[in-house]
Amino acid sequence: MNVIITEDYEEMSRVAFYKVLGKMLGGNRVNLSLTAGNTPKRLYELMIPVVKNKYYYNNVHYYNFDEIPIAGQRYGLTMTSLNKAYYEPCEIPQDNIHELNGNNYEGYDCYLKSQGGLDLILMGIGSNGHFCGNIPGHSRFHYETFGMKTVPGSEMYKNLEKLLGKTPGETSVTFGPRTVMQAKQLILFANGTDKAAIIKQALEGPVTEQVPASILKLHSDITVILDKEAASELSV
Amino acid sequence: MNVIITEDYEEMSRVAFYKVLGKMLGGNRVNLSLTAGNTPKRLYELMIPVVKNKYYYNNVHYYNFDEIPIAGQRYGLTMTSLNKAYYEPCEIPQDNIHELNGNNYEGYDCYLKSQGGLDLILMGIGSNGHFCGNIPGHSRFHYETFGMKTVPGSEMYKNLEKLLGKTPGETSVTFGPRTVMQAKQLILFANGTDKAAIIKQALEGPVTEQVPASILKLHSDITVILDKEAASELSV
Amino acid sequence: MNVIITEDYEEMSRVAFYKVLGKMLGGNRVNLSLTAGNTPKRLYELMIPVVKNKYYYNNVHYYNFDEIPIAGQRYGLTMTSLNKAYYEPCEIPQDNIHELNGNNYEGYDCYLKSQGGLDLILMGIGSNGHFCGNIPGHSRFHYETFGMKTVPGSEMYKNLEKLLGKTPGETSVTFGPRTVMQAKQLILFANGTDKAAIIKQALEGPVTEQVPASILKLHSDITVILDKEAASELSV
Amino acid sequence: MNVIITEDYEEMSRVAFYKVLGKMLGGNRVNLSLTAGNTPKRLYELMIPVVKNKYYYNNVHYYNFDEIPIAGQRYGLTMTSLNKAYYEPCEIPQDNIHELNGNNYEGYDCYLKSQGGLDLILMGIGSNGHFCGNIPGHSRFHYETFGMKTVPGSEMYKNLEKLLGKTPGETSVTFGPRTVMQAKQLILFANGTDKAAIIKQALEGPVTEQVPASILKLHSDITVILDKEAASELSV
Repeated sequence: MNVIITEDYEEMSRVAFYKVLGKMLGGNRVNLSLTAGNTPKRLYELMIPVVKNKYYYNNVHYYNFDEIPIAGQRYGLTMTSLNKAYYEPCEIPQDNIHELNGNNYEGYDCYLKSQGGLDLILMGIGSNGHFCGNIPGHSRFHYETFGMKTVPGSEMYKNLEKLLGKTPGETSVTFGPRTVMQAKQLILFANGTDKAAIIKQALEGPVTEQVPASILKLHSDITVILDKEAASELSV
Repeated sequence: MNVIITEDYEEMSRVAFYKVLGKMLGGNRVNLSLTAGNTPKRLYELMIPVVKNKYYYNNVHYYNFDEIPIAGQRYGLTMTSLNKAYYEPCEIPQDNIHELNGNNYEGYDCYLKSQGGLDLILMGIGSNGHFCGNIPGHSRFHYETFGMKTVPGSEMYKNLEKLLGKTPGETSVTFGPRTVMQAKQLILFANGTDKAAIIKQALEGPVTEQVPASILKLHSDITVILDKEAASELSV
Repeated sequence: MNVIITEDYEEMSRVAFYKVLGKMLGGNRVNLSLTAGNTPKRLYELMIPVVKNKYYYNNVHYYNFDEIPIAGQRYGLTMTSLNKAYYEPCEIPQDNIHELNGNNYEGYDCYLKSQGGLDLILMGIGSNGHFCGNIPGHSRFHYETFGMKTVPGSEMYKNLEKLLGKTPGETSVTFGPRTVMQAKQLILFANGTDKAAIIKQALEGPVTEQVPASILKLHSDITVILDKEAASELSV
Repeated sequence: MNVIITEDYEEMSRVAFYKVLGKMLGGNRVNLSLTAGNTPKRLYELMIPVVKNKYYYNNVHYYNFDEIPIAGQRYGLTMTSLNKAYYEPCEIPQDNIHELNGNNYEGYDCYLKSQGGLDLILMGIGSNGHFCGNIPGHSRFHYETFGMKTVPGSEMYKNLEKLLGKTPGETSVTFGPRTVMQAKQLILFANGTDKAAIIKQALEGPVTEQVPASILKLHSDITVILDKEAASELSV
């Protein structure tokens, strides 16, 4: 595990930027999973002017690592967010975007293998220790890509309703821990004091399904990029 | 995870033989951890005439992954076994043998990193699910190389006494799960019906510290080589 | 360059065997180019019983690196030889055999790239310094896969007529030096005193198109496997 | 060969910047050869504020690929330039700088191998087709690191005198073509119409010692980064 502690959100974003760009410039096909959400906001601001309309990034293929569907909508929360924050402003060709959703998640790990496997997954961490859609109590370390039916009235349904501000669709999906651990390279990044406690648990604590991200430190090629605040509870 | 199911112990040993030899013939330095015990007996019979006195294997360095000390003896159980089964018959130069023992295990993961990291670990599995010296109840998934004091009179002391037929030394040591997961490549091999139940648990069951080898399936480059009997309870 | 000097043809063949098998057992797709001719005879004898009907080699795809067509025959010299010496006795599935011939060589380097590139090419060397079909006077170092029309009455036509004992077809083809240098790993092997002089020139002499194989020593991952006789003129 | 054609010097420099930074952020030791001269000026301006005093680049080791000594001075032209343009402003620790000069070049390729080999060489190209110190007429493709005595009064002596504006020291040194081709990854970059003709020759012409850089296109992992002007004579 390579832990990089930076001064602030800007430096964290720039280190992630260099690492992701360096990978994308390989020439050969690169299979990449990017994260939606708040953590990558600055990263995508940096990437868009650099990547947009540049033919020499056409070797990069994108695979969203989770999806929360919205009833009656073509795209769920993740794809909507990635489209808006990265794919559309960069004008990524549709052929390079490989959508994971509730209709195609079965056998998805075989599909990934047939595509040559994932080269890099960029992930954030939730304050409950989740990564991708691996939520404590719903994911197990031995899971590959899996779906979760959201039964109307269930606690998960209510959580998703609140998160979405809309009616959830039927099946949320995510790469499982095993899917993620098969990728050649991982980047986990986090900023802010809100993340300090969970970062300590994930990086220094036991490996436990109660803190899904605690498994990631066992990957042989993971880089963790933190700002000073997110790193503030680490021992060293 | 690449699972190779072979007809019998002979074929299992030969597949392991080709895979290990292929790695050793790389030209550049190769850092290798081999296992003691019964599983590799035929493998070492195959390797010895091929490796002995051949200068073109001088790029291979050896790191024993655990050690159980014996009171009053220079070498513990593992090194005694490896010396006899492989290092001595192959006439491996002392400079290529990097001994792990109760005196040098602290900071060993740093040492491994400074050596360029491990390229390959070849392991067996115990019927309690242990790999290397990671015994249920004594190892945790987040451990790097660690030592276990064997207090005279304790249950572990009695077990070691029985295993050794001699008085155990003070500190048993082993690569931790995290050490193993950092290696570039893993091979796990097993044969016989005795191993069928634990192989099923390790490969198809949950990831749990009660079955230490259950973590190995999350490695991005592991090959599992089984004979038909050890594979007999697997679903596919 | 990793040069392995062995005692005799048997040991040379076995070292090549371990190296090729080790590569084939990777689990992921492996793209392999094997050579026809006399040098690999013993190698294929060793490989056939090991590879035949073993599902765990189904990840291996084969690409013949040259072809000399025979008028009126479905297969030319190379494919006929590979079929007989390796593909048929091993019962390699047709889907895993990717034939190069006079009808499909244009754009072949693009095709190879789309397949993920070549992982390993196993080659012999001719006493005139040729490798694959790169013959002095007909190949240039900057060539990718190329074809040579054989005009009836030309010197090359007469040479091929003698070589084949039959009427040559229209277009001989071969991977060019640049195609070969793009592969991830190369093995060159040779045995016998007949090869000693050309091995010295290729490995220790200048890089020149008069000795096509002289370029190979510039590859960053090439293993040269020789018997004592083929190595007998080397300086060290 | 991955050819990236950019709009201008700024974009060329930024693409090189992302690729070099991406490599440097690997966590494990990275052995890097950077170029002196004019082409990297903007690149180093971009790198200095990012690399300076950042502990997470301490894994990077630097190896200058050539040196032209100056009589009576501790450092020659290359090290003087690299010190001023990059090492000093970045405050690179002395332990991470591995100097090549006229006193230590013999056996240098063995030294490089013992250090784990070079991960990346960043090079420019001269309008006579030279790369590193491989000048037409003085370098051969089969050379490893080599020295050239500069005899007072010789043509080379006069050229160096003009280039240095000072008295040349005794032995100029450079990685040979073979040294460079052994590196895991190469970057060649060039800008401006002055380089258009030689870029065409090097990338599209025959492989010939009259144009030393013509060999580089045979490397299996080379990225060529050009501005529009340097690329203006390329066919595609």
